[in-house]
Amino acid sequence: MAIDTVVWSNGRVRILDQTRLPGEVSYRDCSDWSEVADAIRAMQVRGAPAIGVAAAFGLCLAAGGDESAFDAAAHGLAATRPTAVNLFWAIERMRRARREAGAAGFPDLQGALLATAQAILAEDRAMGEAIGRHGAPLVPARATVLTHCNAGCLATGGTGTALAVVLAAHRAGKEVRVLADETRPLLQGARLTAWELQREGVPVEVVCDGAAGGIMARGEVQLVIVGADRVAANGDVANKVGTYPLAVVAKRHGIPFYVAAPVSTLDPATPDGGAIPIEERDPREVTHGPSAAFAALTPEGVGVRNPAFDITPHDLVTAIVTDRGVSRPPYADSLREAVADGKPRGA
Amino acid sequence: MAIDTVVWSNGRVRILDQTRLPGEVSYRDCSDWSEVADAIRAMQVRGAPAIGVAAAFGLCLAAGGDESAFDAAAHGLAATRPTAVNLFWAIERMRRARREAGAAGFPDLQGALLATAQAILAEDRAMGEAIGRHGAPLVPARATVLTHCNAGCLATGGTGTALAVVLAAHRAGKEVRVLADETRPLLQGARLTAWELQREGVPVEVVCDGAAGGIMARGEVQLVIVGADRVAANGDVANKVGTYPLAVVAKRHGIPFYVAAPVSTLDPATPDGGAIPIEERDPREVTHGPSAAFAALTPEGVGVRNPAFDITPHDLVTAIVTDRGVSRPPYADSLREAVADGKPRGA
Repeated sequence: MAIDTVVWSNGRVRILDQTRLPGEVSYRDCSDWSEVADAIRAMQVRGAPAIGVAAAFGLCLAAGGDESAFDAAAHGLAATRPTAVNLFWAIERMRRARREAGAAGFPDLQGALLATAQAILAEDRAMGEAIGRHGAPLVPARATVLTHCNAGCLATGGTGTALAVVLAAHRAGKEVRVLADETRPLLQGARLTAWELQREGVPVEVVCDGAAGGIMARGEVQLVIVGADRVAANGDVANKVGTYPLAVVAKRHGIPFYVAAPVSTLDPATPDGGAIPIEERDPREVTHGPSAAFAALTPEGVGVRNPAFDITPHDLVTAIVTDRGVSRPPYADSLREAVADGKPRGA
Repeated sequence: MAIDTVVWSNGRVRILDQTRLPGEVSYRDCSDWSEVADAIRAMQVRGAPAIGVAAAFGLCLAAGGDESAFDAAAHGLAATRPTAVNLFWAIERMRRARREAGAAGFPDLQGALLATAQAILAEDRAMGEAIGRHGAPLVPARATVLTHCNAGCLATGGTGTALAVVLAAHRAGKEVRVLADETRPLLQGARLTAWELQREGVPVEVVCDGAAGGIMARGEVQLVIVGADRVAANGDVANKVGTYPLAVVAKRHGIPFYVAAPVSTLDPATPDGGAIPIEERDPREVTHGPSAAFAALTPEGVGVRNPAFDITPHDLVTAIVTDRGVSRPPYADSLREAVADGKPRGA
């Protein structure tokens, strides 16, 4: 059962605080766009589609001011995180809605913006269903599926991307087991993917990120599937740091490596992975781990680097599952077609 | 300056408790072999050469009993950890010393055993110097060196294996920087490698294990060097879990991948990596991290796998640096020669 990641509730944006999972299911109610921006920055809401939805609702909170206040909110939300393209896509769509609403005053303007934000959320939900439908046939009748980070319902407004494929296969009666990379530094795999799959009754085992390679080498993994934060025009994929080595090892062992993402994650304006900005985050995520209760384990004064993403080049990607179907190489063509496809999203 | 990892002191085995580093430098004094076994099992002392030294001193504590008590101690120490071959090598050497001592009574017998254990420690120290001397020429005049886990003085009785090469290059005036994988689950990289290198004045940055691949892809790493827990006759290498994916990524980018290990880590009796037993350790290392103060972050009831090592096949290994020189493919020949070499160890 999908849990609500981001919703509009009583004039506020209600965000499930994912930094407290799995220990605590609690929500943050934001009454100002800057609180939404803070929640995105702090990764209380994370996952490319989910932060797009959160930003869209966040802009509904900026409907009370004039156009320049709206612009400031749009800029502020866009500045939270640089890699996921859904954020910019959603903000651009909200800007368009703002322009179309013209000189409408407060309640009407917010209504118009809200309609667009709710549409983005509804499409996100339909997108997960469609990705699951298109991706499930890629999963063998009996398979151990390796995944990294969390590309489940918590990463979207709906059922997820990579985990939507896993769930659709599971519901179709396939014997699917998941091997979940714990995903340092913030442990989205151990905390979020394990929690989601346990709720859904899908067998799951957590491993340290470094252990996945050796397990693949022993022939225990039938396919790898991950989400994406941005897919460039040539099929290069930005995703949570640690994805790239999995793809390289999967290639060595002939294990299919799939990426699942809605078309809103495809970015035709970015030619290749080299043009995708990679966010560097606070070293304390590495030295202190995901909980404030963690003591520093790295000696004081030692340098730390904390790139949040890496780039998987398209030659390592077997196929990209979008809400419009399964795109295969050459991606320059197949992704262009997926983006141009006139079908309504989620169809 | 190398720190004493394991020494004989006032009739006891004094072990630096590495689980408390870098926060606290404290020692455990063991007066019974079973305490030494416990320290090895709990990874208070770890690193293939160091646990060999610890086991040798541990057997000196069994000199007071009869031959069957000595055998029981040898069996008990051998049962602590299955992968590192130095453990079995050191125990076998102590058994030989016990046999040669024949019917000698307590103080003499302990003296004979102690002479052998001290010889193993002294050779371990000389081995580190020799590995550094042979390996330093492999390091360019200006290089970022990626390493995994801890193969420094803390992993041996002396200056280490992989880090001995780094230190020798640093002392020869090369501009060496180290990128240290944090090395989940027990964070030997973040805790131990960073601490050692900081003490030695070698610039070091810590990264999450999953981040190393992307950093290699960006051309920022000139060579990878790691230690080993066992090297099979064909050159396959067992080392801390997470080593194998580094080797695969290094190969893709043409980055040399070196293994540094004393000849006591070479195991001619093991034909290949498939024959090396891989220890599975307590899932709590993954769910709770390296400190008892850590809360469980993985949901209750979720499965966890915790293989402590992985196998890097010989085709990914550019060269193996031992105390007897630099061995290159084909390893079946070059390693046989290294083992058979009549030179005293450390020469």
